[in-house]
Amino acid sequence: MDIKTYLNDKKKIVENGLKELMLPEEGPFLNHFEAMRYSLFAGGKRVRPILCLAAAEAVNHSADTQKNLLPVACALECIHTYSLVHDDLPAMDDDDLRRGQDTNHTLYGEAAAILAGDGLLTWGFDILSDTTNSPLSAEKRLAIIQVISRAAGPYGMVGGQALDIGSENSDFPFSTLQTIHKSKTGALITGSVHAGGLGADASKEQIEQLKIYGDKIGLAFQIVDDLLNATSTTEQLGKAAGSDASRGKATYPAYFGVEGTRQKALEAVDGAIGALQDFDDQADPLRALARYIYTRSN
Amino acid sequence: MDIKTYLNDKKKIVENGLKELMLPEEGPFLNHFEAMRYSLFAGGKRVRPILCLAAAEAVNHSADTQKNLLPVACALECIHTYSLVHDDLPAMDDDDLRRGQDTNHTLYGEAAAILAGDGLLTWGFDILSDTTNSPLSAEKRLAIIQVISRAAGPYGMVGGQALDIGSENSDFPFSTLQTIHKSKTGALITGSVHAGGLGADASKEQIEQLKIYGDKIGLAFQIVDDLLNATSTTEQLGKAAGSDASRGKATYPAYFGVEGTRQKALEAVDGAIGALQDFDDQADPLRALARYIYTRSN
Repeated sequence: MDIKTYLNDKKKIVENGLKELMLPEEGPFLNHFEAMRYSLFAGGKRVRPILCLAAAEAVNHSADTQKNLLPVACALECIHTYSLVHDDLPAMDDDDLRRGQDTNHTLYGEAAAILAGDGLLTWGFDILSDTTNSPLSAEKRLAIIQVISRAAGPYGMVGGQALDIGSENSDFPFSTLQTIHKSKTGALITGSVHAGGLGADASKEQIEQLKIYGDKIGLAFQIVDDLLNATSTTEQLGKAAGSDASRGKATYPAYFGVEGTRQKALEAVDGAIGALQDFDDQADPLRALARYIYTRSN
Repeated sequence: MDIKTYLNDKKKIVENGLKELMLPEEGPFLNHFEAMRYSLFAGGKRVRPILCLAAAEAVNHSADTQKNLLPVACALECIHTYSLVHDDLPAMDDDDLRRGQDTNHTLYGEAAAILAGDGLLTWGFDILSDTTNSPLSAEKRLAIIQVISRAAGPYGMVGGQALDIGSENSDFPFSTLQTIHKSKTGALITGSVHAGGLGADASKEQIEQLKIYGDKIGLAFQIVDDLLNATSTTEQLGKAAGSDASRGKATYPAYFGVEGTRQKALEAVDGAIGALQDFDDQADPLRALARYIYTRSN
């Protein structure tokens, strides 16, 4: 299989799903909806929704499973996008560029951007609980909501971002950097894979293997992100390069150097693929995705 | 029944529920948890959770129903608290005081306050989907999550706040002020009553009546809030008084004057009580709550 074609096909499916679920283009909240829509369609790679769909595919190849899970995949993208909008705010990372385009607050102002993020997060849970958008059972939806809210919340993504912001310009042990990575980036990636497995009726054993896969690629993803921030130009990256070092943020390259960091990423990718040894070739997209994450660093 | 005793008793039940559900006092995210906890226990009146429990009581008086709905009531308070933390931010209303105490960002800084809000919102959905905290059925939980996410999200509370912020210092028709009130404040109040009805197995007809009740007291609540902002001192209010006028915010007193506004509040309260005519005396707390909201303005 060709991973680039796969990613492109799935990306289109997710973006069509998002457009279908999209808020109307009229009514009193038009400006708010526009700010939400702007960041949602500002060129994301759709990694989390694709991971969700690919994890479901690894367990159950039926077209119905993919179709039924599409709203869940879209909700994950809403929640991920909210986190980017808030991370970019002046009070947080203060970034003007994201994916080569103006960040939300640069375009709409700080208040509207905070609210666009709040709207995207809450709307994610609206999609997840809206029984009219897919025939997923109530039990399955509820289990998925629990997984995603735990992953995105104070024990996961938000907690990690708070720890990251609170640790800037301070010395802390390597274990803290690992906690930041695992929660800030890893939790929602693992949550995406976990949700896909739940939606496809994975066994408990399969869920555990998918979660290990998620943890490992989440780690690889964040390591590669650190690496790109340290070694790329702003033009290549579409966002401010070198910003981690200038803000005194803890990163893998700061601990292990560029080559050592690359090695750590490769180990994580190998671990992810190893976790899938009991899966058949329906899990090939997940395997290819793990390798693809590493190639971003080269 | 004595409404003050009722409110006090229910408030204690909600606060004990929140303490039970509370995040641990150790682990890597301690500072984040502390910022969340600060605003959650900064002296709120717990109106939304109490409305949820009182609506359930109006339908089904059993102690089990109250107990099973307590996590839902607590989640409503988390979501309400997040909205206050974000509304107070420098980029929004820029308030230093809330309930007579420092606002979250004054104490913890802007970044931590944004994240405390994000954490409280997401944690609200965690509580709502956590099947270990109450025997509520999956169908019921899901219906409640849908009602609350719709009420709190871009079509409701967040959309209303965005419209409010976007309308400052501009002339707009009275219908826009109504839309702001209905969405920013009214939606989550109606959602609280609606969720309570769902949790207590209310009939479709009862749900409709409870929703009208919610809409009317939501309106009364916001009118009274406008009135207090215009007529009280900062000391009486525990937050900056007169701030609406100085920020050029649209309010009821700006349209109808103080006496006319008081009259509008009374009409809304009467409408709320009228919506409950098919309910027996188990709905007396809801009726008393409606009257109590009005007395705040005197």
